[in-house]
Amino acid sequence: MSRRSGGFVVLEGIEGAGKSTQLERLGRRLAAAGAEVVRTREPGGTGAGERIRELLLDPALGDIAAETELLLIFAARAEHLHRVIRPALQRGAWVLSDRFTDASFAYQGAGRRLGMERVEVLEAWLQGGLRPDLVLVFDVPVRVGLERALARGKRDRIEGEDVAFFERAREAYRTRAGRDADRYRLIDGTPDPETVERAVERIWNDWLADRSG
Amino acid sequence: MSRRSGGFVVLEGIEGAGKSTQLERLGRRLAAAGAEVVRTREPGGTGAGERIRELLLDPALGDIAAETELLLIFAARAEHLHRVIRPALQRGAWVLSDRFTDASFAYQGAGRRLGMERVEVLEAWLQGGLRPDLVLVFDVPVRVGLERALARGKRDRIEGEDVAFFERAREAYRTRAGRDADRYRLIDGTPDPETVERAVERIWNDWLADRSG
Ligand SMILES: Nc1ncnc2c1ncn2[C@@H]1O[C@H](COP(=O)(O)OP(=O)(O)OP(=O)(O)O)[C@@H](O)[C@H]1O
Ligand SMILES: Nc1ncnc2c1ncn2[C@@H]1O[C@H](COP(=O)(O)OP(=O)(O)OP(=O)(O)O)[C@@H](O)[C@H]1O
Ligand SMILES: [Mg+2]
Ligand SMILES: [Mg+2]
Repeated sequence: MSRRSGGFVVLEGIEGAGKSTQLERLGRRLAAAGAEVVRTREPGGTGAGERIRELLLDPALGDIAAETELLLIFAARAEHLHRVIRPALQRGAWVLSDRFTDASFAYQGAGRRLGMERVEVLEAWLQGGLRPDLVLVFDVPVRVGLERALARGKRDRIEGEDVAFFERAREAYRTRAGRDADRYRLIDGTPDPETVERAVERIWNDWLADRSG
Repeated sequence: MSRRSGGFVVLEGIEGAGKSTQLERLGRRLAAAGAEVVRTREPGGTGAGERIRELLLDPALGDIAAETELLLIFAARAEHLHRVIRPALQRGAWVLSDRFTDASFAYQGAGRRLGMERVEVLEAWLQGGLRPDLVLVFDVPVRVGLERALARGKRDRIEGEDVAFFERAREAYRTRAGRDADRYRLIDGTPDPETVERAVERIWNDWLADRSG
């Protein structure tokens, strides 16, 4: 776990699935073991990325076309890749990212019904061959996730979309995770945080053993 | 010229080539002949487009990757297409646009050296088969264009790039115009505005006759 060459690990799932909670715990564990860990989240805390995020979340923007939204997200992702992710990977750090391109497949591809092919084209355009080494998908029923997120006070963004939108996103995550067993792990996010954390730890250790072996 | 089904006409060229001057004159002439004319410019005066434009021109943004810039420009273009260009074309109006995707080939593809293929992928992604019916490329030596633009007080944006950047953009415009004689016309932008206007008028009348014939 503390060897020099880290990797690119992404935590995914609908709102309230537990991504941020588990990222924090996994990050602490890796760092305690002596690895360089870069914790990040889309749009990556770059100046331009944050400005684009503000724009996307600004209610004053009104309705924008789904294609516009997706292009803005990929613009922020371009900065995130250039400034944060690629440099960290080149140093041999572990990059733990709270969401990445799978979220575009789930939210814009499925949620907004743009279609997976449209997202695939932009993914290839921006990333070339770069893909996460491991994607942990936290799976919870939509109602559970939304209740957790609402309890946390995340009203504005969530009230804007109906349950069916998140159902489509959840299904897309499950489908993608089921299709590529090498790089994806679907994790039941409904138990308490400690139970989920132990599941992550087991999965992590198995994955690392396979990878080194 | 006043028939119901108009078309999509784009005016292109480096800074100071005379696009805005000639767009105004052509637009007046078409409108006087009874056509519905929509004069627009990238990013198209849509709320989201203007916000993205602000972002792109804001010096506080600092250096952004060329890919980020291109994705932001295409995000603004997506709104422009959805809200302005497609609806106007569907009504049968003439759409006269001060710049469109050729500017991305010239400035990001050639100027920033991203390459034409990268721009082509996004063009196909966003536009499908939609292309301008006619592109008028105003050609002036870089020094002439920059002097005109500087005389008009357009310092900030221009001082940021060197002459070689604009030389690459000019060359790209000339090359693209030379490759597709059906849809492109290269117009010498160096004579006085009235002479250029007469050239536009001749080209326009010939093009319209060919198109109707
Ligand atoms: N396994 C869990 N059981 C119960 N509550 C949890 C669990 N994991 C996280 N929570 C709580 O649910 C809320 C959402 O968790 P968290 O922020 O980790 O989710 P998230 O996937 O990052 O959500 P978002 O997409 O909204 O950022 C938080 O208040 C968190 O404390
Ligand atoms: N044919 C011309 N001869 C001399 N000056 C011109 C000519 N056409 C335009 N100008 C002047 O040059 C300046 C730039 O012209 P214009 O704004 O039409 O160019 P542009 O291509 O739209 O430039 P920009 O890309 O900076 O918007 C203006 O001050 C305009 O009055
Ligand atoms: Mg979170
Ligand atoms: Mg102009």
